[in-house]
Amino acid sequence: MRQVSVKGIGMTRFGKHEGSIKKLAVEASRQALKDAGYPKVDAIYVGNFMGGSLAGQEILGSMLANELGLGPVPAAKVEGACASGGIAFRQAYHLIASGVYERVLVVGVEKMTHGSIEQITGAINTAMDNDSNEGLAGLTFPGFFGVVANRYFHETGASKEHLARVALKNRTYALENPLAQFRKPTSLEEILAARAITDPLGLFDCSPVTDGAAAMLLEAGGEGVRVLASGQASGPPLMQEIPDLLRIPAIGEAARQAYEQAGLGPDDVDVVEVHDCFSMTELITVEELGFAEKGQGWVALEEGCFSPGGKVPVNTSGGLLSRGHPIGATGLAQIYQVVSQLRGTACNQVEGARIGLAQNLGGTGAYSTVHIFEGGKTS
Amino acid sequence: MRQVSVKGIGMTRFGKHEGSIKKLAVEASRQALKDAGYPKVDAIYVGNFMGGSLAGQEILGSMLANELGLGPVPAAKVEGACASGGIAFRQAYHLIASGVYERVLVVGVEKMTHGSIEQITGAINTAMDNDSNEGLAGLTFPGFFGVVANRYFHETGASKEHLARVALKNRTYALENPLAQFRKPTSLEEILAARAITDPLGLFDCSPVTDGAAAMLLEAGGEGVRVLASGQASGPPLMQEIPDLLRIPAIGEAARQAYEQAGLGPDDVDVVEVHDCFSMTELITVEELGFAEKGQGWVALEEGCFSPGGKVPVNTSGGLLSRGHPIGATGLAQIYQVVSQLRGTACNQVEGARIGLAQNLGGTGAYSTVHIFEGGKTS
Repeated sequence: MRQVSVKGIGMTRFGKHEGSIKKLAVEASRQALKDAGYPKVDAIYVGNFMGGSLAGQEILGSMLANELGLGPVPAAKVEGACASGGIAFRQAYHLIASGVYERVLVVGVEKMTHGSIEQITGAINTAMDNDSNEGLAGLTFPGFFGVVANRYFHETGASKEHLARVALKNRTYALENPLAQFRKPTSLEEILAARAITDPLGLFDCSPVTDGAAAMLLEAGGEGVRVLASGQASGPPLMQEIPDLLRIPAIGEAARQAYEQAGLGPDDVDVVEVHDCFSMTELITVEELGFAEKGQGWVALEEGCFSPGGKVPVNTSGGLLSRGHPIGATGLAQIYQVVSQLRGTACNQVEGARIGLAQNLGGTGAYSTVHIFEGGKTS
Repeated sequence: MRQVSVKGIGMTRFGKHEGSIKKLAVEASRQALKDAGYPKVDAIYVGNFMGGSLAGQEILGSMLANELGLGPVPAAKVEGACASGGIAFRQAYHLIASGVYERVLVVGVEKMTHGSIEQITGAINTAMDNDSNEGLAGLTFPGFFGVVANRYFHETGASKEHLARVALKNRTYALENPLAQFRKPTSLEEILAARAITDPLGLFDCSPVTDGAAAMLLEAGGEGVRVLASGQASGPPLMQEIPDLLRIPAIGEAARQAYEQAGLGPDDVDVVEVHDCFSMTELITVEELGFAEKGQGWVALEEGCFSPGGKVPVNTSGGLLSRGHPIGATGLAQIYQVVSQLRGTACNQVEGARIGLAQNLGGTGAYSTVHIFEGGKTS
């Protein structure tokens, strides 16, 4: 397998956009191609979840090839719910590493804010196994992670205040990110007093509805930020099939694969982006990734491990909670931030960051990807 | 690049099914895994187009991993409109050929018949570039290929009767296919007298709304039907950007790549499945693939080239027109038929068939894949 690096990156502002899903994807792609010096592109992968169900637009890969003037290059959309971006990135990585292509454009995009809340909830719920009693019973994503949070509190001693601390940390990071959706300062008191979404999760514990796109150009060789490893795993898509509600096995397995491929462990990682679709999800994820013992994520958070200057800053972009969560774009927005950190040009720059990790989740645990990156000069 | 072969194949009956999209995908997958001798599977790719917009179900890859008991294997859905199946197959082929995986399950599936005609048309139209005046003006797929047919008649001398002959040929093949949607005999007179859909296309000129799934297990080595080549190209998704209405450049380019990789030409091919979403499309496609000169597909058809015993039998499965067109499954149903032909076990078996070709189209020319296969003992 050859070395693969991220040569160019691009990202739109996350939030509400009036333009089409195509316009968003084109904007991020043009930035990434420019950043990479307009190289010849051999293929396009698009991470997108609800283009068909909410934006009325599929064939995004072909539209991009045409709109960007890239000729007849092969293109495809990849779907893995909220992990669509991470999975699209993995295709590009593997196909370059194994010598099939030299350079691949990967684009993540979602257009959501134009939908009604019923349309959006309906589209999001296609990420559950709807051929089951859980779908029929009306389980939703906030409902799922609310149940998990109550169980987490019961087993570990954590409380709503610890979830609020996750939200506050990520909002504080977002204040410095010019592309983030939410850049208004908040406080623990405001977060704890916000309206309930599903007990015990309040408004600030849940990621928002967002439009946006992120893109990157990957190429063979080591001239950019290098991709050290790609892990991906599937897990049970139903709550009733999860033996332990405080675990998301797909994350642990994807991390195991990635650490093994990179020959590294959690202690080697300098900066991390995780999939905080809910504040609760961030705590379980840092545990699955080995940045805290099982059931101890809230303690590490309280100790400041994930804050600026902490042992391993988590979600320095603001995370899904405050950077925003345009579903298909999220996995690539995470990598955009990690690559920026390893280039030394990020908001909330972690000084001397050399190894970064990005973790993307799909469904309630149906999919997870973990990618590990290295910056600095090639050794 | 290593040799890759198709070890196991499976397919549901095509037509109307009461069960869920998941049940269809599981049924075809179990057949393919059984046919391959239940090997260990390293990854799953699912070709699917409108799971989110019409069946209310995404995360099909993870659901299959879970339902089939394949453990945490990486999985993803791939979308390229009606070429989703062919594109999914290509991912599996490349990732085995290049050494990333040893064995990959590829599944194509669509559940359509439960939708209203408005829902189905809406979902299909996400395969057009809707950020354009063509979408706004109400162009549909039958509308597009109706325009192409009128132009084809004008330039070549062909007529409605030649389209009817395509439909009759494919229906006649379907009579022998126990999995085909339409198995009732018809006649040139009935086809020509059928109600108009969009001038000059009648009911029999248009592929139907279908539920179904097809699956295959690919593995490294040459113990099954061998994959000799994979071509894929993108083309302009808008009619206004096509310089010549009688060409679909993505097909020609995908074919060029595939012939080059295989070191073969059209004369070497013994049996073919093409994407006859409309009777008109089959004529243009046989021309793009080199089985007839440009504008002469209707002449070759009249001469019986594509009929039983002809030079190169086309759509011996019945094609999209009569086997049915469950969109995401179509590309794999084509390969199912080609592999069956090269195994010598197909309906409408072509005696001594050794080289087969399958061509899958997405949108009005947004995507095309061409795969070439070889049967018989490894040389």
